[in-house]
Amino acid sequence: MTDDRVARVGLSRLFEPGDTRLPRLVAQLGATRVFELLREEKDIAGAATDVAARLLELRPERDLEEAAARGIRFICPGDAEWPGGLDDLDVVEPLQGRGGAPLGLWVRGSLSLGESAATSAAVVGSRSATTYGTSVASDLAAGLAGGETTVVSGAAFGIDQAAHRGALAMRGKTIAVLACGVDRAYPSAHKELLDYIVDVGVVVSELPLGCSPTRYRFLARNRVIAALSRGTVVVEAAVRSGALNTANWAQRLHRHVMGIPGPVTSAPSEGVHQLIRLRDATLVTRAEDVLELLSPVGANLSEEAQEPARPRDLLSRRDQQVLDAVPVSQGASLGSVARTAGISPTEVGRALRTLHGKGFVEESESRWRLAEQR
Amino acid sequence: MTDDRVARVGLSRLFEPGDTRLPRLVAQLGATRVFELLREEKDIAGAATDVAARLLELRPERDLEEAAARGIRFICPGDAEWPGGLDDLDVVEPLQGRGGAPLGLWVRGSLSLGESAATSAAVVGSRSATTYGTSVASDLAAGLAGGETTVVSGAAFGIDQAAHRGALAMRGKTIAVLACGVDRAYPSAHKELLDYIVDVGVVVSELPLGCSPTRYRFLARNRVIAALSRGTVVVEAAVRSGALNTANWAQRLHRHVMGIPGPVTSAPSEGVHQLIRLRDATLVTRAEDVLELLSPVGANLSEEAQEPARPRDLLSRRDQQVLDAVPVSQGASLGSVARTAGISPTEVGRALRTLHGKGFVEESESRWRLAEQR
Repeated sequence: MTDDRVARVGLSRLFEPGDTRLPRLVAQLGATRVFELLREEKDIAGAATDVAARLLELRPERDLEEAAARGIRFICPGDAEWPGGLDDLDVVEPLQGRGGAPLGLWVRGSLSLGESAATSAAVVGSRSATTYGTSVASDLAAGLAGGETTVVSGAAFGIDQAAHRGALAMRGKTIAVLACGVDRAYPSAHKELLDYIVDVGVVVSELPLGCSPTRYRFLARNRVIAALSRGTVVVEAAVRSGALNTANWAQRLHRHVMGIPGPVTSAPSEGVHQLIRLRDATLVTRAEDVLELLSPVGANLSEEAQEPARPRDLLSRRDQQVLDAVPVSQGASLGSVARTAGISPTEVGRALRTLHGKGFVEESESRWRLAEQR
Repeated sequence: MTDDRVARVGLSRLFEPGDTRLPRLVAQLGATRVFELLREEKDIAGAATDVAARLLELRPERDLEEAAARGIRFICPGDAEWPGGLDDLDVVEPLQGRGGAPLGLWVRGSLSLGESAATSAAVVGSRSATTYGTSVASDLAAGLAGGETTVVSGAAFGIDQAAHRGALAMRGKTIAVLACGVDRAYPSAHKELLDYIVDVGVVVSELPLGCSPTRYRFLARNRVIAALSRGTVVVEAAVRSGALNTANWAQRLHRHVMGIPGPVTSAPSEGVHQLIRLRDATLVTRAEDVLELLSPVGANLSEEAQEPARPRDLLSRRDQQVLDAVPVSQGASLGSVARTAGISPTEVGRALRTLHGKGFVEESESRWRLAEQR
């Protein structure tokens, strides 16, 4: 009789992440029974032919022991650390033939995955990001971290990297979700970054140790990023970027989908603009906007950006009315200003003297106009 | 007995544009009767005190003659050239105490105002625009003009100027709406631009000849820009920009309100981003998007920007599946790729050879990985 956790480890060596045949089988029979049936080489749903070759090499108990020896744990549904959000993947339609909650996740790091993910936002985008994009992503992530929100991303070059670094710079929490085993560094240039995230955050993957990334696995990984996070922000994404795939998953999972705009002349912003224009993603410009969207109604309200009060706001209502009637270019007589303002010449005379004293208007040969610096 | 047109010219010398007391009076009594009553110095709605001083100087018949001599016409509701959209101003609530359709419009130029406005979009924005903003505004206006759409703007520095110039560069139609008399050039640096627009487009204002611009008149002018156009696009606008006032009018008038995003780090784009985020303006990135929104349903559909088909799209489905299973970094054996793909080693071997021949994968010591240029 195989233990559920061991069965899940075994199954994760037999099926690609996001294989939609598996969740239904596991839900109906339980991971243990499915694994045992496959071990008996029963053909279930046509799956056995794929897996026959792999069954002989399977040593799930040893996988777990070896991982534990390297400080890596395998968490399953039901574990305290299991993020409930992942289960949403079992109730939404597959996307491009992939779907379902992971069988389990391999986790490296000092934080509880469940707790870190409870208040989290994914920040994702192009690998070929611009300096504008990476700078905005890093500022955004720093702001989220400052708002006690965990930054989830994929540890790729470009936006992902900037997002993790922005959170780390604020000593905030960050989660890296990989498309390869958590014992591997992809891209290899990010080994140090990943080691640092292991120290202060969490690195997770549904792929067993030693596995390489493939395009298929990147796409399957994106659903985990979206499901782990309460919302997904896309910073820069060309029209066919993988980040848009993550955004699609977030939308399907009824998470908030947000985009940071950029110049319309910049190809890496094109996908984001489409997301906002055609897929109803919310335009956000800074961490406060994201925090507001992800908070319970009424909490963390982002203040509408406003210019500081201008000097004219401090004038009396009457003085403002007169000021509004003073020509901006060629000067006008007091009588003309009075007629435009619809206010008596006496009152207008008094207001013009006040406005002149405060530098709002200029007078030349009894004709009044706005001062240059109004 | 004063003619309606003459009465309207007279009244336009007595009331500031957008004075909300006037439309109701004119609707109830007719322009002629209101003007006659005021001439008899009857106090109507408290308006007489404002206007007593001006009544003595009024020569509306002479105003019309002098204008005609200079090639300037005054159009009123009921004229063939009167743009019907302006009447919408009479049925919506005032904004900041201003509202109502103009009594009439002073028009200079070779085009029919009504015909040009029938298919039109306003392109407005900050006077202190960036080079990004002016370049985008000019491209947008050129694209609209190319799509047989008249570009409406306010002839100000920055975005307005770029919009007019973009349309003119395409030999397209453009309408400049001024906050001063159409015989004046404001800003004076735009005299040549305005003369050119008179030659090939239309310059209009509800202010009598000789009138100077004031802040009040700019705000009243904005409602005319919004009402003349089928939609308003804001290109760059700081948080308290007058362009947002035009957008508010467009929204109130149930016209399309659109915004062109920019870098979130650019203050002149901040107002546009707020418009999209908080006021439900539509994010647009190019003329095609605007043309699509302003067209009858189904016409002028803007194609979703797509990258050209990639080489992998031309592969057979099976070859693509195998390609998706090939590691991106360290190579994997044929058997390992077959297991990942869930496809028999024989078939995978065939596919790998095809993919190798087409440069998608590399092989080294019987291990396969994606080619650098995948």
